[in-house]
Amino acid sequence: MIRHGSIERFLDELASRSSTPGGGSVAAMVGAMGAALLSMVCHLTIGKAKYRDVEEELAAVLARTEQLRKQLMEMADEDVASFSAVMRAYAMPRQTPEESALRTQAIQDALKEATRVPLRCCRVCREIIDLSAVVAQKGNSNVLSDAGVAAVAAHAALRSGALNVMINVKAVTDRQFVADQLTELDGLLSQASAATEACYRFVSKAIS
Amino acid sequence: MIRHGSIERFLDELASRSSTPGGGSVAAMVGAMGAALLSMVCHLTIGKAKYRDVEEELAAVLARTEQLRKQLMEMADEDVASFSAVMRAYAMPRQTPEESALRTQAIQDALKEATRVPLRCCRVCREIIDLSAVVAQKGNSNVLSDAGVAAVAAHAALRSGALNVMINVKAVTDRQFVADQLTELDGLLSQASAATEACYRFVSKAIS
Repeated sequence: MIRHGSIERFLDELASRSSTPGGGSVAAMVGAMGAALLSMVCHLTIGKAKYRDVEEELAAVLARTEQLRKQLMEMADEDVASFSAVMRAYAMPRQTPEESALRTQAIQDALKEATRVPLRCCRVCREIIDLSAVVAQKGNSNVLSDAGVAAVAAHAALRSGALNVMINVKAVTDRQFVADQLTELDGLLSQASAATEACYRFVSKAIS
Repeated sequence: MIRHGSIERFLDELASRSSTPGGGSVAAMVGAMGAALLSMVCHLTIGKAKYRDVEEELAAVLARTEQLRKQLMEMADEDVASFSAVMRAYAMPRQTPEESALRTQAIQDALKEATRVPLRCCRVCREIIDLSAVVAQKGNSNVLSDAGVAAVAAHAALRSGALNVMINVKAVTDRQFVADQLTELDGLLSQASAATEACYRFVSKAIS
């Protein structure tokens, strides 16, 4: 699993001529870093007298950011697995019409899964952006910049996931599936941009 | 060193109640992932007959992205070291006027260094965004989405570095230093937004 290896090894494998891991795993890891930073700000807020009023709310946020962080770490591997499944499907034999039909079906199934994984990453990152705004407004102001970093990291992860949805959905022939995925993606992207800019502006103004 | 530890450990330490590593190290790591993805696209382009015309140019890009990746990996540790130096300076004794003066000077020196490190991260990420555009336009189109991910990752890293510059420069009393840092930062931020949006639009249009 990617998360058990060293950071240097992950970066070396990213940079290598192998196409996995790639941008989909980066999206998941960058999102996980955003979630982790929110957990840190929650930890540095909870238990402090000055922040007693928001303690309960931030404890709930912390439980959620830790769940999302775990999901995103797993998605880094799921992205590699789903891409490998696409490659395996393309490598299936197609000597007979039966083989060809089986191969086509396997490719379509694999491409759909390779679309679902980054779309789930986008959904989770959308939620992290919202949680960043809560943490920025209510968390320990000494580490306010970290809540801002969480928002921009989650936004980059969402947009990175979006590029992976787009490139993988392109060859899917099920038009309803394509339309559904792209409609959801558009909604996530447009909400996320506005929310991220608002959080970044709030943080940069408050720390300046 | 952060890069020699596992990804899971880095994320656990980020999420913990210790304020290091924090957003500054995340900025450096996210930038390093962007650089690594550009290296991957270059590797998957160089040596292919279809891309012979751009081979020399992308070999030069690859040499540069690998240099920048190395610098960013080191910056993740430098950020922790510079933050720790600020904490150590604040903890210095101030019983006598002499001690107080020494402490004030040490705090100011440490804060300046804690501003220079993320500003260097911003400069490097600005360059990665430009290189992303070159790689997106000329690199192997099968992995075009990865060049787009590199651009948005580098942009998030730049903005994250910027928040760290802002929060650390705030207590610096040398007005000329503050003005110089913030002027350079403003320039980097405004150029980077436009360049990132152009690259993201180019990639998302090309893969759709």
